Amino acid sequence: MNSRAPAERRAAFRWFTGVTLRWNDIDIFGHVNNARYYEFFDTTVLGFLHTRDLGIGTERAAMVVAENGCRFHREIVFADRLEMGLRVEHIGTSSARYGLAAFVNDDEEASASGHFVHVFVDQQTKRPKPFPTPVREHLESILVAA
Amino acid sequence: MNSRAPAERRAAFRWFTGVTLRWNDIDIFGHVNNARYYEFFDTTVLGFLHTRDLGIGTERAAMVVAENGCRFHREIVFADRLEMGLRVEHIGTSSARYGLAAFVNDDEEASASGHFVHVFVDQQTKRPKPFPTPVREHLESILVAA
Amino acid sequence: MNSRAPAERRAAFRWFTGVTLRWNDIDIFGHVNNARYYEFFDTTVLGFLHTRDLGIGTERAAMVVAENGCRFHREIVFADRLEMGLRVEHIGTSSARYGLAAFVNDDEEASASGHFVHVFVDQQTKRPKPFPTPVREHLESILVAA
Amino acid sequence: MNSRAPAERRAAFRWFTGVTLRWNDIDIFGHVNNARYYEFFDTTVLGFLHTRDLGIGTERAAMVVAENGCRFHREIVFADRLEMGLRVEHIGTSSARYGLAAFVNDDEEASASGHFVHVFVDQQTKRPKPFPTPVREHLESILVAA
Repeated sequence: MNSRAPAERRAAFRWFTGVTLRWNDIDIFGHVNNARYYEFFDTTVLGFLHTRDLGIGTERAAMVVAENGCRFHREIVFADRLEMGLRVEHIGTSSARYGLAAFVNDDEEASASGHFVHVFVDQQTKRPKPFPTPVREHLESILVAA
Repeated sequence: MNSRAPAERRAAFRWFTGVTLRWNDIDIFGHVNNARYYEFFDTTVLGFLHTRDLGIGTERAAMVVAENGCRFHREIVFADRLEMGLRVEHIGTSSARYGLAAFVNDDEEASASGHFVHVFVDQQTKRPKPFPTPVREHLESILVAA
Repeated sequence: MNSRAPAERRAAFRWFTGVTLRWNDIDIFGHVNNARYYEFFDTTVLGFLHTRDLGIGTERAAMVVAENGCRFHREIVFADRLEMGLRVEHIGTSSARYGLAAFVNDDEEASASGHFVHVFVDQQTKRPKPFPTPVREHLESILVAA
Repeated sequence: MNSRAPAERRAAFRWFTGVTLRWNDIDIFGHVNNARYYEFFDTTVLGFLHTRDLGIGTERAAMVVAENGCRFHREIVFADRLEMGLRVEHIGTSSARYGLAAFVNDDEEASASGHFVHVFVDQQTKRPKPFPTPVREHLESILVAA
């Protein structure tokens, strides 16, 4: 709601998905509770990954969140429509960093922006393992150089 | 789960509160979903504020989150008991920064650590306003110099 | 998933709204957790009420849930699209009963069906009060005789 | 909040567990949102099942909700402590019906009461299968004849 960094714009993102708000996203202060933004972020990243059949979220492999964060520029209320923007900012051997933002109605400026760091892990050993080529290529398709 | 920064210890925090896990905190990967940690953080900060009757969360005044973040060191599963640690790291005119951590069972090292920046706002104008003395004193009671 | 009552069909409902699934709607069993259906139901009923400016959810008046329930016919997974159907089944002096159902993708048969009983209450006294005419008329617009 | 059936008392239940409330359990009406009660119910039933190592929630077997419901007698607010009561009301070949209630602070009368019908299913085939003896015995340990 009050972060001083300038809000990002839609053009800075490469993939978008709509999120419908739920009545109990709204807390006693009358706006979307902060924890809910991470549900939107999580759903956006996994939604993008699931646009291709990469076998993530199965018995074999998982994407595990190592770190995330959010800056809240403007509150979001129940009547709002929400569109989430996503980009990949960095791809390492077995981890990737995403940039995310929440756009309300037809706003060009984000109401909130955040980041996620995902680590690709083997579901049996719980250890990081290098991205398979199809996963890496999928991440590269929305990579924006810093 | 994989953040490289060393996990913090209980002694670094000044106020603690227990959180019971819920079955649907656990996502398809078998561990507590990242968004749920922010419910724990939010509840810890507001729980601390509500140990005194400061009139927060009423028609007069609210604490609004400007920014937050979390680093995930180790996954948390359904059987775990959870204790949250809290400290205040900085107090400004109308905003405060908190440090938080989630301790599992009897662990001395945090399974996750995070931060929250709260802004004190007037509920009518939605503008920041200076902390009243009782709020400031309450925050100071768990202040840890950086 | 296994309820023996026959699943209802789209034609039995009068108002529809889309709901986007979230990654952490899915629990460890790989399907949408039962508690989340009530978020969908709640959002559907309030979403319908908010299509007209009736002053619900303000300092003056609230709709409070007296009772609800759900039968689960078939599990819902992350990739699914969800459309919620709503009808009003009964209108009393200060309470109403709704029928609801969740339709997956292009299915004609509901994957889950439920009901809600709402009571109209004064926010100050927390006591039931008779529906104002605009609220009653709005409810009647989707009334289906039992 | 307003259901006319008399609220049940603690003595009618056989197993109890504490639940800590979270800040965002509270919706814009200032009380715990109805969908959250089902998180409490779900956690209570699974918490009871997990007091013995029955292999539920693994790759082999799951308890799937066929039907549930709740009647809300009195609203619950953030400061409240919550204790959930559980009993088994019926045990069939592969399904069981539970009775549940939420007790606030030291109240003898439930603030909400509900039911769950669970079906024991094979995780591979998704078909019901008869309760193994250890599961049946565990359910019988809190059975209350109707």
